[in-house]
Amino acid sequence: MTSLTPPTPGTRLDPWFGAYAQRAHNMRASEVRALFAVVNRPEVVSLAGGMPYLEGLPLGVIADTMQRVIATQGTTALQYGSGQGLEELREQILDVMRLEGIDAHPDDVVVTTGSQQALDLVTRIFIDPGDVIVAEAPSYVGALGVFRSYQADIVHVPIDGDGLIPEALEETLTRLAAQGRRVKFLYTIPNFHNPAGVTLSLERRPRILEIARRHGVLVIEDNPYGLLGFSHDPLPAMRSTDEEGVLYLGSFSKTFAPGFRVGWVVAPHAVREKLVLASESAILCPSNASQMAISAYLSTSDWKGQIKSFRELYRERRDAMVGALAEHLPDASWTVPDGGFYTWVKLPDGLDSKSMLPRAVTGRVAYVPGTAFFADGSGADHMRLSYCFPTPERIREGVRRLAAVVNAERELVEIFGTSPSPDDVTDIDNPGPDSL
Amino acid sequence: MTSLTPPTPGTRLDPWFGAYAQRAHNMRASEVRALFAVVNRPEVVSLAGGMPYLEGLPLGVIADTMQRVIATQGTTALQYGSGQGLEELREQILDVMRLEGIDAHPDDVVVTTGSQQALDLVTRIFIDPGDVIVAEAPSYVGALGVFRSYQADIVHVPIDGDGLIPEALEETLTRLAAQGRRVKFLYTIPNFHNPAGVTLSLERRPRILEIARRHGVLVIEDNPYGLLGFSHDPLPAMRSTDEEGVLYLGSFSKTFAPGFRVGWVVAPHAVREKLVLASESAILCPSNASQMAISAYLSTSDWKGQIKSFRELYRERRDAMVGALAEHLPDASWTVPDGGFYTWVKLPDGLDSKSMLPRAVTGRVAYVPGTAFFADGSGADHMRLSYCFPTPERIREGVRRLAAVVNAERELVEIFGTSPSPDDVTDIDNPGPDSL
Repeated sequence: MTSLTPPTPGTRLDPWFGAYAQRAHNMRASEVRALFAVVNRPEVVSLAGGMPYLEGLPLGVIADTMQRVIATQGTTALQYGSGQGLEELREQILDVMRLEGIDAHPDDVVVTTGSQQALDLVTRIFIDPGDVIVAEAPSYVGALGVFRSYQADIVHVPIDGDGLIPEALEETLTRLAAQGRRVKFLYTIPNFHNPAGVTLSLERRPRILEIARRHGVLVIEDNPYGLLGFSHDPLPAMRSTDEEGVLYLGSFSKTFAPGFRVGWVVAPHAVREKLVLASESAILCPSNASQMAISAYLSTSDWKGQIKSFRELYRERRDAMVGALAEHLPDASWTVPDGGFYTWVKLPDGLDSKSMLPRAVTGRVAYVPGTAFFADGSGADHMRLSYCFPTPERIREGVRRLAAVVNAERELVEIFGTSPSPDDVTDIDNPGPDSL
Repeated sequence: MTSLTPPTPGTRLDPWFGAYAQRAHNMRASEVRALFAVVNRPEVVSLAGGMPYLEGLPLGVIADTMQRVIATQGTTALQYGSGQGLEELREQILDVMRLEGIDAHPDDVVVTTGSQQALDLVTRIFIDPGDVIVAEAPSYVGALGVFRSYQADIVHVPIDGDGLIPEALEETLTRLAAQGRRVKFLYTIPNFHNPAGVTLSLERRPRILEIARRHGVLVIEDNPYGLLGFSHDPLPAMRSTDEEGVLYLGSFSKTFAPGFRVGWVVAPHAVREKLVLASESAILCPSNASQMAISAYLSTSDWKGQIKSFRELYRERRDAMVGALAEHLPDASWTVPDGGFYTWVKLPDGLDSKSMLPRAVTGRVAYVPGTAFFADGSGADHMRLSYCFPTPERIREGVRRLAAVVNAERELVEIFGTSPSPDDVTDIDNPGPDSL
């Protein structure tokens, strides 16, 4: 038998391997993507995904609305549209944002293909390779992926139960300035944070804005969950008190449905013009059909009532989640979110959520390891559990299974002194869209 | 009275002017955008836009199909989907591409938000600032915009009535190699070229592929119009004979409708993986609702019959266009396209299509100046006229008006020796999505 030298990974089958842009090398397929494919099997309880629960939507009504839109306005709905988005929808978006105290003009709004595209466009117009983006520790995995793809340097700032810590932000920005680093923006999720589940307190909001303003740093306020609070009315958005210093990102994905891919960004005039040009370059224009479907839904349905029923649904699931954690994983600790989709769980000492994941999937339960939410690969002592999609019963079953996995893992750690890390789990940077 | 120094343009109102990325400075709003806003007024005959004519679509049937999709599969249609796109649609896309001799696997296809997004993703994964992209002279304005936004250096290669000239490509690639320039890909529109209206001959296709292969240059085959030929069956795509060397871009925007924003790219395995990662970063996933609408249309309607009727419709309009040009502008010359949406008109000597545009709009007719289709600002002696959207009667009226504008312009040139260029028309680089 001849001994074969294995080819360098990625070169053998790819004649264009040497032709990629620098940024493409920052786009890596995660080795746990294969695991996430398994996660969607019915026998696995997935506490990994960020998918909203859509059974509660009035599908028949939405279907009839869509029928009417195409039958009566089809030549508009099926045609190219404006790069900025339809004016009627932009006006309705103002109604949505008014619930959080935002006073804006339709011209300030740019409609995007989900708020993920807004993240992409904002990063595209502001970030040169090596520029610094400041983000919470932890932060949204999909944002970190965008930032990395534009070769940004991500610097984390710690949070606590009241969200981003102003003193830590001040210290970080001062240190970066002393180092001569160029900080382009602060990326923050003030409400029902993904993954941490915490909310920036009312008291801290003006302090964060003041610090950012003093350091000349733009604030990106990403707010997909703000209307999904469990116990009180929405807090005023940071954008509601700062028009020039804040870019606000909104989305219909969590308050209505993600399948139309409609989000938006509100930006100061000149920035908004750049965003429109960038969006035209990226996709020409957002889908008229999608925008008109959302617009018709907003004008003909009780969308506020629907959000209220989502809040009740998700609160019940949050209760199921934290109740099951208290019962089955008393040695762990977790945030108790007052809205949104996620709780952030700290594992008992010595456990590693990333290396444990394959064994969890074997145990028919899935989560997202904490490492996905840090640019520097830390966070293995945490995991994100989502309670948005599974029923309360499935949530309890999932936590039960997770506890069994954790307990078995703990025995391994006691025997071996460390949590064994299989070779094939080396990178959770991009677990794929299902996990977001 | 105090004399005021006007502020530097763009700085006074934009507190973030100093924070933009390098690439954002390549995204410029065209001063003729204001003109294009006027173009959509009913009194103006627009021969500028690339909008398909949708009146012929069975809107009632499409509306009912969409109703059924949401009523029966709503929790999928309204949910997040896969970054690569729905498998069922990718299989149907294979049926579409088989009409051009392409034999591919569903795994090879990535669904995008219009083929514009495919252009963006391909450029994103391959282009570092300063890399060379070779493109036809002229080339699609929307592609040039994407290439510029990634700071590519665009090098044009001349075309003639049979499309890209192989000898000119060979000469260009050899020269660039001698200069040590890194050519990342050739961007070409082989069928019913936008804006030139010409088609790459059957005889030249293998020669172009051979030259590109020999120089190690990837070929981007952009083919939105290939099925819209007037006199013969579609020519075999370049991708049909070269799986590894060609990335193929397709779209439903011209053969069905652009309003769902569904296009696709076919790529070799490893490149396709990068494209999926890049797309997930840009938008998470394409719209399930849009994809399922297209999929249901393809499986329940006579889509080939619809394309046939589009071909007849556009041929009649092409005939109206070239007939009117022969009657009213005998001193100009133009291509006679055998499919697609556009003819490329060379103006009588001494006329400048860019400086003439404001006077044309005053004369209630619009076109896209040739300068939009060149990276170096040349092309002012040409204009693109599209015949896709206006009725034959409106096309004839538009050309009549254009002839009056041209004749008046010619008098100006005879008197002043040159075509006067108003100060406010300095940049047609990005005329906005309506003109594409």
